[in-house]
Amino acid sequence: MSDERALAERVVRDMLEADAFSRWLGIELLDVAPGSATVRMRVREEMVNGFGVCHGGVTFALADSAFAFACNTHGRVTMSVEGAMSYPVSVAVGDLLTAVAVEETSAGPLGFHRVTVQRQDGTTVALFRGTAYRTRRPHRAAEEGENGNA
Amino acid sequence: MSDERALAERVVRDMLEADAFSRWLGIELLDVAPGSATVRMRVREEMVNGFGVCHGGVTFALADSAFAFACNTHGRVTMSVEGAMSYPVSVAVGDLLTAVAVEETSAGPLGFHRVTVQRQDGTTVALFRGTAYRTRRPHRAAEEGENGNA
Amino acid sequence: MSDERALAERVVRDMLEADAFSRWLGIELLDVAPGSATVRMRVREEMVNGFGVCHGGVTFALADSAFAFACNTHGRVTMSVEGAMSYPVSVAVGDLLTAVAVEETSAGPLGFHRVTVQRQDGTTVALFRGTAYRTRRPHRAAEEGENGNA
Amino acid sequence: MSDERALAERVVRDMLEADAFSRWLGIELLDVAPGSATVRMRVREEMVNGFGVCHGGVTFALADSAFAFACNTHGRVTMSVEGAMSYPVSVAVGDLLTAVAVEETSAGPLGFHRVTVQRQDGTTVALFRGTAYRTRRPHRAAEEGENGNA
Repeated sequence: MSDERALAERVVRDMLEADAFSRWLGIELLDVAPGSATVRMRVREEMVNGFGVCHGGVTFALADSAFAFACNTHGRVTMSVEGAMSYPVSVAVGDLLTAVAVEETSAGPLGFHRVTVQRQDGTTVALFRGTAYRTRRPHRAAEEGENGNA
Repeated sequence: MSDERALAERVVRDMLEADAFSRWLGIELLDVAPGSATVRMRVREEMVNGFGVCHGGVTFALADSAFAFACNTHGRVTMSVEGAMSYPVSVAVGDLLTAVAVEETSAGPLGFHRVTVQRQDGTTVALFRGTAYRTRRPHRAAEEGENGNA
Repeated sequence: MSDERALAERVVRDMLEADAFSRWLGIELLDVAPGSATVRMRVREEMVNGFGVCHGGVTFALADSAFAFACNTHGRVTMSVEGAMSYPVSVAVGDLLTAVAVEETSAGPLGFHRVTVQRQDGTTVALFRGTAYRTRRPHRAAEEGENGNA
Repeated sequence: MSDERALAERVVRDMLEADAFSRWLGIELLDVAPGSATVRMRVREEMVNGFGVCHGGVTFALADSAFAFACNTHGRVTMSVEGAMSYPVSVAVGDLLTAVAVEETSAGPLGFHRVTVQRQDGTTVALFRGTAYRTRRPHRAAEEGENGNA
């Protein structure tokens, strides 16, 4: 495994461990690489809205977590500034959702990401676009790596 | 209370009762009127992300619920098509968030809404913009009202 | 050429002919297919903003035209409802911009599109996301085709 | 006039003078204050799209200029990072459009703005939301002011 990929994995595993809400959602890490992340979760009864389908905030949160993981893979603390989501298709209880986040481009401290959310049959159920602001502060996991302790 | 306001309240109370995720969030209804809704929730430990602050998906979900309530107040089943959020300020555990959703304008079946999320000290912590698609289908609560059973 | 592709071309050529602003921009049609369109333009002196770089509205208009062409290719009159753009890189006078619009997914009358704008060296200078609302009204070019007059 | 307001006016007049595209649009400055700007333009024949109504890029450009003016009023060179627009109502040739841009909130180098575009009869025809990134570099007009030459 490349150093960049190892760093990406360390940072994201560290983040997920501290991320109580992603754990409540049942988010599972499928893949991490520099600038990208793939996560998965199953929709539960307690995640529905007033129409009995998956609450938009839940689908958004899944995409937002994938986005947060992807944009922190370079080892600097990076924060979400904006997130926008379109919902072409309703999501039902029991659906297994996979979110793939990729960095489309970056400019100085800003990164522009895209996340696609699909359900088990391959249908795209949500499209997410996120803007991130990268600080100069390294992740703890990145520092450990540099010190040879990871 | 006007008939419109009574209808708005009936519809939203009906929606919130079925909305398991909004109830998990602890969302409380403060005010409902035709085209608008105000809700409130307190941020809990289980809502934090990997940086120990409130997960963006939680703040989004609060705004999205307020938006969903506001755009259904007219009594027709109305669905979120898009939602976009900016996060100027981090939200901490213990913060009490109030989201005010208002319809800015509408065009045919589409409605354009704005939600402002503030914490207890009046600081704006998130700005949300949502687009809704109104179907021709009446809410159950609206039909009951028309039949005089509500 | 398939019937679908021929229809797409007829509709878009018809639109471009009536589109005075796209012609002022110097927009040139490179490719049209069902659900997609590729266009190109060169940035001129009269298109700069107060900082001497290409005005954001010009880059947006290029993407918006590509989006409008792509979402009308199916032969029904389709209108833009929302458009959002990120600007990772400034565009200079003399730059040759190519915008590729593709339909990502659709749901009932709504279509969700993505447009990527690149300059001559392949750098992505803008990312656009657009939502379209498809009416039931056929394009004149579509009707002519059905009548065998096109 | 306060110093802040005088600075805002100097900066925006300087920007508009260099802004060839805003001048092509016929944008007229109605009011400038710290964090806000109001501009106006009339829609001309050469601004229509393939449906014979005002091209979305033109309405966007008007809002984007108002946004750019508003976010530079503090005297630092500030760039648009993102802009998103909803189009509830079509705009016709001859319509007189007024765009009011206000800063909703800011966080470090980022500013979040809202622009409302109305036509002559007070109807809201477009809603714009923009994110700006403020550099540390002062405007020439700001430096001149500091040196007492403006």
